[in-house]
Amino acid sequence: MVGTINHIAIAVPCLRAASDEWRQKLDAEISAPQRLEEHGVTVVFIDTGNSKIELLEPIDDASPIAAFLAKNPQGGMHHICFDVDDIYASRDRLVAEGARILGSPEPKIGAHGKPVLFIHPKDITGTLIEIQQR
Amino acid sequence: MVGTINHIAIAVPCLRAASDEWRQKLDAEISAPQRLEEHGVTVVFIDTGNSKIELLEPIDDASPIAAFLAKNPQGGMHHICFDVDDIYASRDRLVAEGARILGSPEPKIGAHGKPVLFIHPKDITGTLIEIQQR
Repeated sequence: MVGTINHIAIAVPCLRAASDEWRQKLDAEISAPQRLEEHGVTVVFIDTGNSKIELLEPIDDASPIAAFLAKNPQGGMHHICFDVDDIYASRDRLVAEGARILGSPEPKIGAHGKPVLFIHPKDITGTLIEIQQR
Repeated sequence: MVGTINHIAIAVPCLRAASDEWRQKLDAEISAPQRLEEHGVTVVFIDTGNSKIELLEPIDDASPIAAFLAKNPQGGMHHICFDVDDIYASRDRLVAEGARILGSPEPKIGAHGKPVLFIHPKDITGTLIEIQQR
């Protein structure tokens, strides 16, 4: 069911400083920032050739990543997003196997304009997993 | 400098339970376990088509991931590994830009039989990054 890794997201307190770190130390090419009001974050992407790194900065204290950054003030790995062929079939299997969907079980539109869902990290090896319709 | 994502590693307290979770909930195919004495871990891989997920279980309390699991008892994302064309050139650039290499600056042989180095997470957005010679 899980397909290719669409992206790995890293929450950061400051997108400008984080972009500089990745650019200077790792010679990464950083996309233009994109503000996603509905998700409470501003993001940039780093294309790695086979997948993407997404750096996320909270828009404000109500952002879903604000609590994560309060615990991890320097930032850190936040979630992994997998492409799936059928997000409804994937959701139904997850729920049948006892995994909880975060928030509404109806997919939201994510950063790439496609339907996404998040799975409770306690239900899969302490890891926040996003699934995205291919 | 950073190339394709070679793998994303998730530390887990129990490889068998973690493998079951990924298999049942996410329909993942899990490789046979591989014990890496030198790294203090037993690993399995999940091939995602474009990259890999690596699940890591500590061999004992002296394992480098034991402290991480003490803080994150359910497990969690541990590091991201990038392929690089020239691990020595990458190391030298990182050090020149102020990033610290964990342990010896001489690459060790990693899970794939290739030279690897780890960068201090405080020096790159709170994220532990491994680089591996392509």
